Amino acid sequence: MLTFWYDFTSTYSYLAALRIEDEAARCGVDVLWRPLILGPIFAEAGFKTSPNIIDPAKARYMWRDLARRAEGRGLPFKMPPDFPMRSINAARAALAVSDTERPGLSRAIFERGFGEGRDINDPAVLAEAVAAAGHDPALIKERIGTAEVKEALRSAVSEARGQGVFGAPAFICADGELFWGDDRLADALEWAASRAAA
Amino acid sequence: MLTFWYDFTSTYSYLAALRIEDEAARCGVDVLWRPLILGPIFAEAGFKTSPNIIDPAKARYMWRDLARRAEGRGLPFKMPPDFPMRSINAARAALAVSDTERPGLSRAIFERGFGEGRDINDPAVLAEAVAAAGHDPALIKERIGTAEVKEALRSAVSEARGQGVFGAPAFICADGELFWGDDRLADALEWAASRAAA
Repeated sequence: MLTFWYDFTSTYSYLAALRIEDEAARCGVDVLWRPLILGPIFAEAGFKTSPNIIDPAKARYMWRDLARRAEGRGLPFKMPPDFPMRSINAARAALAVSDTERPGLSRAIFERGFGEGRDINDPAVLAEAVAAAGHDPALIKERIGTAEVKEALRSAVSEARGQGVFGAPAFICADGELFWGDDRLADALEWAASRAAA
Repeated sequence: MLTFWYDFTSTYSYLAALRIEDEAARCGVDVLWRPLILGPIFAEAGFKTSPNIIDPAKARYMWRDLARRAEGRGLPFKMPPDFPMRSINAARAALAVSDTERPGLSRAIFERGFGEGRDINDPAVLAEAVAAAGHDPALIKERIGTAEVKEALRSAVSEARGQGVFGAPAFICADGELFWGDDRLADALEWAASRAAA
């Protein structure tokens, strides 16, 4: 079992989300998808925005690196109009469905965000993703506003922080071992698979 | 040709420095070693220290990630007493020798820093690395203090910044394409090799 922490406005979470199921299946590892929002985690560390874009040179590099990597994997990639996007409603939507429905809905949201460069905080865009994943947009919209779902997201952020998460994507193995970043996915799966076998 | 920008107090530069010659030789790519100091670059971006350690959770992860990766490569790894270390004199020492002598001296410095966990700004540690690489410590110490070597380091930082460098290790291909981080070394070499062949 591997826990996959992701934020819908995290660029490298997009890259990981679009391949983790295939990679994990190849290693015989189950994945638990857990959305969070990084804003409170970055704020606690004293960052006013994503640490990836504080230095404009680093921001330019990130977009270039993403374009290169997406192209190498045959994935569409388009910069959203604004970055970081507000991802709180998208995260709540993903928490409003079951564990088994979450990967499909999450991919549908990511595809509209970094795949098509659209604002996932726009209710129409989010509703479109929800419908594309086979859910009723009106029902999910209602659930997003419930105290239960709001509390689930707050708890998730707090739990992630407790597991040592400081950015996304983050992968946590059953023994607590943490791996950070799309480029550590293979290492995380190898760790999870070898510990499960032992 | 690949330009390899590194800082002696950059953890992931250590990982790259200890393997870049072998990896590059396998790809038929020549490497130009260029030391810099990241302090002025981080300061310009508004960071008071290495962005890797601003969030204590990220700092803890970095040390764990380095230990894992070093172990996987059969490399020694020991946290230095203080981080980031002052690397200005080490960088000047590396600039005080020729392009062909620089890789050997640089590895000798890195081995004492992150390999043995010693302070490379300690003149005795630096002198030991210089001697181990086959140079005269007294002569290098004298060169470190010259206006020529000091200016060479200032120019290097400015040139790196102009090439888009915001962290280290950074790899610049002949066409200007930038790759950042030890985990992008293979991508950088592939880019450099394929462009050279074209």
